[in-house]
Amino acid sequence: MAKMNESFLELKTNYLFAEIANRVRAFEEANPNPELPLIRMGIGDVKLPIPQMILDAGKKSLDELGVAEAFRGYEDSGRGYLFAREAVASYYASFGVEINADDVFISDGAKSDTGNIGDLFSPDSVVIITDPVYPVYDNASIMRGHRVVRSNFVTDELPEKADIIYLCSPNNPTGDAYTFEQLKKWVCYAKKVGAVIIYDSAYEAFIQEPDKCPSSIFEIEGAKECAIEIASLSKNAGFTGIRAGYTIVHKELMLEDAKGEKVSLAELWKKRQASKFNGVNYSAQRMIESALSFEGQQALHENIKYYQENARIIMDALTELGIKFTGGVNSPYVWFKCPNTGDSWEFFDFLLNKVHVVGTPGIGFGANGAGMFRLTAFSTRENTTEAMRRFREKIPTVRNS
Amino acid sequence: MAKMNESFLELKTNYLFAEIANRVRAFEEANPNPELPLIRMGIGDVKLPIPQMILDAGKKSLDELGVAEAFRGYEDSGRGYLFAREAVASYYASFGVEINADDVFISDGAKSDTGNIGDLFSPDSVVIITDPVYPVYDNASIMRGHRVVRSNFVTDELPEKADIIYLCSPNNPTGDAYTFEQLKKWVCYAKKVGAVIIYDSAYEAFIQEPDKCPSSIFEIEGAKECAIEIASLSKNAGFTGIRAGYTIVHKELMLEDAKGEKVSLAELWKKRQASKFNGVNYSAQRMIESALSFEGQQALHENIKYYQENARIIMDALTELGIKFTGGVNSPYVWFKCPNTGDSWEFFDFLLNKVHVVGTPGIGFGANGAGMFRLTAFSTRENTTEAMRRFREKIPTVRNS
Repeated sequence: MAKMNESFLELKTNYLFAEIANRVRAFEEANPNPELPLIRMGIGDVKLPIPQMILDAGKKSLDELGVAEAFRGYEDSGRGYLFAREAVASYYASFGVEINADDVFISDGAKSDTGNIGDLFSPDSVVIITDPVYPVYDNASIMRGHRVVRSNFVTDELPEKADIIYLCSPNNPTGDAYTFEQLKKWVCYAKKVGAVIIYDSAYEAFIQEPDKCPSSIFEIEGAKECAIEIASLSKNAGFTGIRAGYTIVHKELMLEDAKGEKVSLAELWKKRQASKFNGVNYSAQRMIESALSFEGQQALHENIKYYQENARIIMDALTELGIKFTGGVNSPYVWFKCPNTGDSWEFFDFLLNKVHVVGTPGIGFGANGAGMFRLTAFSTRENTTEAMRRFREKIPTVRNS
Repeated sequence: MAKMNESFLELKTNYLFAEIANRVRAFEEANPNPELPLIRMGIGDVKLPIPQMILDAGKKSLDELGVAEAFRGYEDSGRGYLFAREAVASYYASFGVEINADDVFISDGAKSDTGNIGDLFSPDSVVIITDPVYPVYDNASIMRGHRVVRSNFVTDELPEKADIIYLCSPNNPTGDAYTFEQLKKWVCYAKKVGAVIIYDSAYEAFIQEPDKCPSSIFEIEGAKECAIEIASLSKNAGFTGIRAGYTIVHKELMLEDAKGEKVSLAELWKKRQASKFNGVNYSAQRMIESALSFEGQQALHENIKYYQENARIIMDALTELGIKFTGGVNSPYVWFKCPNTGDSWEFFDFLLNKVHVVGTPGIGFGANGAGMFRLTAFSTRENTTEAMRRFREKIPTVRNS
């Protein structure tokens, strides 16, 4: 019988979201008609509809596929249509970063590229993953047999050898965004040890302090030679169901073969994609073009502001309650120390059963998340306000009990 | 400096389509206004627009994303919405094959799954690839370090050990479709050696002899335990730009770990997808639902018939010219022995320069394609007819020269 890839056996089953679902289900069965309806602030899933102009771009593109003269089949390059790649370049130019459309690869969202790009590296690579973090960097690395080393968010106590470094800023789950100074140190470290940074900028649109926190790793000098940036329109444009993003790989970025010869990572990525990917939905590419245009960004800014206001409502409540937190300012996530308990799941249960709010226990994102908790601003205004009203009402009582 | 995955060095650069493009460009530069315009019958890229009812399903789904109450974000399972998986099951039921919607994984087209599914297998796996064949099975296998053994289309002279077998029927490029008898032999062989068949059924909609040639490998008894079927709507529904397909993995299909314990391949695939894929465009999934419905299939049948008539026009001309061919009946490809030469590229050049028709040299699909040539029926009626008029006019002259 054919043998499996044994690396899959090393995958730690991440019970996080399944366990949350189980506990919520048990609560709902026990409380079919709770006095206060359950408010979900767990998963980072956007709620607001996509602006009409962006949907119209998608619909127009579908109309084209109904007309012989305008019909489009395979997109030859597999890297995305030039119009979409140029839209990405213009978007970066709007915050002062020069990107060549030739270095852009349109993707079906950050998750695929974040996972697949590691296939280009030697199987004995060492991967640095900051802890706590979004679990897929870890799982994708383990599946391909890479050795994972966990580090802190900042560059202290790093190993002497590393080949791949996954960074996420603004960070999921902590909501922290790197400052220029912090990110410079990572670039410096990557160059010193010869590692490649895989920079996940999925939450970039939430940065409110662009003078303090870079919107792109390419704002750091020298990053072109040591970093890939992987971006998504899921949070920026509500494309969670559309599935669209992009990856930027500069020609300057090199790997080495066993003989020490330099090989362009972009060329390897093209080879990988040419055999294992057939491009992104045409209509989604037209929607990228629309979303990243000046008018598209103006329309989307309303949505981002809405979530930022939700984050502010959460931060205000936590501040009042004397609960320390990170995030919220440059991120849709607020991350805090569980009040009155050192245990993430204990606080989860309290919140579910007494406050009727669902959040995410920090321990699910790694050992450094122990005793921490994540709330998301991707909720309605009404639910966010009501959840914080309940926090004010119920949590001080617990603290004093 | 970080090391590359050395398996990528083993990739043979496939000059086929690049070389075709170069020669066509050179011809066009030398002949800016050819007496007869160039007709392209090379790439298997559909031409006919998508039927309106299917586009309307896509447009309606985009409208939903513009309304808060109907908005959809991440699709939880990552395997595709139940409505799309049930549409696949109903489609199979329409030709008498029972599929459980639970065993269906909606994909962004056959290419991704065909390549990625191999990641579930041990790195020392042996892969059988029939020759000639679509080049991506080979490349994807090489990238992950699997050992590739080439075989004929039918089960003669097969090795004693094999773990993965790529089959494509109706075949690209030869146009041959397996008979029940032939496919039974492959299933029997796979079971004997404990291999998994990865069955690419991208051209299934072109089968005109369903009593002779199975539309699905699951028409063969025992295939559920040894085969995966990977399908695409690219050719069936003109979804080359929409990017949608599906993969069927039955719960009965097992791999083995190093200790000999059985592991469900479907479960491994779910794990892989959960960390490296975030589902298919919602609108594309609604279009799958529409395309695979009874009414959708009726509308699409007109398109299929159009291409089948093109194939008949090609076959008639080759028959008249005394050129032996395969395909055309159950496939949009016609595959023939190059007349008057044993060399695929020589015939390509003759066709380009004297007949002003572009086709695909068989040698590009593997050693067994030497001296052979592929023409596609995915052209307009006008161009197909005109190309065959030129064949009749120009090719006999050459044969007698």
